[in-house]
Amino acid sequence: MIEAKVDIVEAKEKKAKPDPENLSFGKIFTDHMFTMEYTREKGWFNPKIEPYAPIELDPAAMIFHYSQSVFEGLKAYLDPEGHIQLFRPQENFKRMNRSNQRLSIPLINEELVLDYLKQLLTLEKDWIPSADGTSLYIRPFIFATESSLSVAPAHSYKFIIILSPVGSYYPEGIHPVSIQIEHDYTRAVRGGTGTAKTGGNYSAGYIAQAKAAEQGHAQVMWLDGVEKEYIEEVGSMNVFFKINGQVVTPELNDSILAGVTRKSIIELLHDWNIDVVERKISVSEIHEAYKEGTLEEAFGAGTAAVISPIGELSWGEEVMIINGRQTGDLTKSLYTTLTGVQTGKLPDPYGWTVKIKV
Amino acid sequence: MIEAKVDIVEAKEKKAKPDPENLSFGKIFTDHMFTMEYTREKGWFNPKIEPYAPIELDPAAMIFHYSQSVFEGLKAYLDPEGHIQLFRPQENFKRMNRSNQRLSIPLINEELVLDYLKQLLTLEKDWIPSADGTSLYIRPFIFATESSLSVAPAHSYKFIIILSPVGSYYPEGIHPVSIQIEHDYTRAVRGGTGTAKTGGNYSAGYIAQAKAAEQGHAQVMWLDGVEKEYIEEVGSMNVFFKINGQVVTPELNDSILAGVTRKSIIELLHDWNIDVVERKISVSEIHEAYKEGTLEEAFGAGTAAVISPIGELSWGEEVMIINGRQTGDLTKSLYTTLTGVQTGKLPDPYGWTVKIKV
Repeated sequence: MIEAKVDIVEAKEKKAKPDPENLSFGKIFTDHMFTMEYTREKGWFNPKIEPYAPIELDPAAMIFHYSQSVFEGLKAYLDPEGHIQLFRPQENFKRMNRSNQRLSIPLINEELVLDYLKQLLTLEKDWIPSADGTSLYIRPFIFATESSLSVAPAHSYKFIIILSPVGSYYPEGIHPVSIQIEHDYTRAVRGGTGTAKTGGNYSAGYIAQAKAAEQGHAQVMWLDGVEKEYIEEVGSMNVFFKINGQVVTPELNDSILAGVTRKSIIELLHDWNIDVVERKISVSEIHEAYKEGTLEEAFGAGTAAVISPIGELSWGEEVMIINGRQTGDLTKSLYTTLTGVQTGKLPDPYGWTVKIKV
Repeated sequence: MIEAKVDIVEAKEKKAKPDPENLSFGKIFTDHMFTMEYTREKGWFNPKIEPYAPIELDPAAMIFHYSQSVFEGLKAYLDPEGHIQLFRPQENFKRMNRSNQRLSIPLINEELVLDYLKQLLTLEKDWIPSADGTSLYIRPFIFATESSLSVAPAHSYKFIIILSPVGSYYPEGIHPVSIQIEHDYTRAVRGGTGTAKTGGNYSAGYIAQAKAAEQGHAQVMWLDGVEKEYIEEVGSMNVFFKINGQVVTPELNDSILAGVTRKSIIELLHDWNIDVVERKISVSEIHEAYKEGTLEEAFGAGTAAVISPIGELSWGEEVMIINGRQTGDLTKSLYTTLTGVQTGKLPDPYGWTVKIKV
C-alpha cells in the first residue's frame, strides 16, 4: 500500500451512527470526506481528509450552469474477519477517467486516488455496517468550480469522496420488478455522453421514470436513440437476458455505460461455462423469445442493487411475464456469488477484491 | 408593474464598477443577486434580493451528482433616455418553464419572476453599461439542493438570478467565423434534452468544440443524432442560411433549442416580406447550393452574439467559403435592426421590448 501523503483534519465531534436495521440509500454521511482541488497552474493539489461539511461556491461556479461533472459509485464491506473490503475499485477510477475525458475534465491519478480512498476508509471503518445486505456506499465526484459563464471547460475543479452507510437494496429479500420499455424518451445516443458517468445522463431520465412509475412500473428500459429498437439499459443498470439457455447482454457501444457489475457477471458466466454473448438485442427479438417460451430470465445489474430481477416487461399494450414473476435460478446464483465475493463471505478466485488491513 | 413582495438586503459595501472599455463575458458580477427557495411543503418561497455572495451546499446536494438544473440568458440595456430595457423577457421565463418540465423541476410563476428581475435591475441600474455593444447579462438559473444520492427528482431547489456587465461580442466589429460540421459527436437527439436549456447539453459539447478549435475553427455545427445529415445548431446558437434569395432555418423538432433571437429573426423577415422557411436542411443540400453558387449567406443567432456570420463551413475535406468571407447584407441588416430595437436606438413596432422606468 502506497500511503500517499494526505493532510488529515479530524472531526472534533463525531456523529451518532444510524440504526443498522433502518438504513436508507445515500441520506446519511460519515464524519469525514476526502477533498482535492485542481487549477491549471497546479494540477490536482491539496489532498485532504477533513470533517464532512458544506462547500462554499460562487453563484457563477460553472457546475450550476453547464453541469461539467462526473461521478462514481462503489461499496466497501466488512469481511468476516473484520477487514475492510472493496470490489474492483480500480475499475471505477479507470471509468472515472474515461468520463473525465468525455466531459473535458482533467484526468486523475487512479492509483493515488485509490490510496486516498483507502486512507479515508481506514479512518471511517466504524461506519461500515455489517448486517446482511448493508455496506458503506462510496461516492467519488468531480465538478467544475470556476466562476465564469463562458461555455467552455472550467480552469478549476473539486474532487470529493463522501461515504454513506446504506441498507440492503432488498430489505424483504430479492424480488423481481416490473419494467416498462420506453419508446419516446431517450437516455443516450452515439456521439453523446451515454458511456460517461455524468450527472446530465441521470436527471434527463427522471421524466420517463415518472411516467413508468405512474403506470405502476419500477423502472424504464431504454432503447437506442437511433432506431428505437435495440435495448440499451434498464433504469441506471445494465441488462441481461437468458434465452434458451444462453445469456445475452447488449454489446458496449457509444451510448451504454460499461458497468463493473456487468463485466463481472460476464466473467463469472465464462468461468461457469455458461454461454454468454454480448451483441445487439432488439425488443422484437425479446418479444419473439417470449412468445416462443424461450425467454427464461432477465435482470438488471449495477452497483446499488447488484442484481435486480425483472418479473414483467411492458412494451406498449404487450406485457411479458418472465419466469412466472419469480427470480430465476441463474439470476439467484449470480446474486449469491457476486454478493458473497463482494462481502468476503465467499472466496475470491478472480482477484477482484481489495482488502484494507487495519 | 406588479411589485411582487421581495425582501431586500442591501450590500454594505459596493464593488468598484469595471472599466466599460474592457468588459469580458460573465466574469464580473454586480453587488446583488435574487434568490428564492423551493420545498415540497412550501412551494417557491423566501424571494430575496441580497448581497452577491457564495452559496453553501452539502456535498451530497443533488446538483453535484445528477445535474438537475436549468438556466436562461437575456440582456438588459440602457435606452437613449436612460431607462432600463429588456428584450422579450417573457419568452425566457416561458422557456425556463419548458426546461423545468423536461428536467422534472417545479414550475415557476413567470410573471412574478419577471417582476423580481425588474426589482433587481432597478437596484443595480448603475451596473448597466452604456457603451456600444455592451449590456448587462442576466443569468437566471435553478438547481437541485436536496442532500441525497437517490436517482430521483429533488425535493428542494434554489432559483437565483445573477447579473454581469458584458462587453461587445465583437470588439473589432462584426466579423464572419469559420465553422466545422461535426460528424462524430452529437449535441442532442429526439427524446433527449436538446430543447431544454439544461447544463448537461453544454458541457457535453466541449470535446467537439476543442476538436474544432484545434483545427482552427471557431465553433461546431451540430447534426441530428439519428441520420447525421440534418443541420440542427451551431455552437450554442440557432442557424440560418440564405439560399437563392430565400432564408431557411432548421424547423424546431425534439432536439433543437427554440431561441428567442431565432424567433425574432423569423418575425422580422416576415415583416420585411423576405421569404423565410422553417424546414429540415441537410448538409448535402447546403453543399449543393454552395456548388451551384446559390449559398449566399449563413449566420448563427443567439442572445450572446445576437448574430454571428459564418464565413467558412468545413465538412470533412470540403471547405465552403460563404460570401467571400464577408458579412452578407441581410445578415448585417438583421444585426443592425435587432441590436437597434434591443438597445432602444431604433423604434420597436413589435412590442418586443419591456421598459423599466426608474
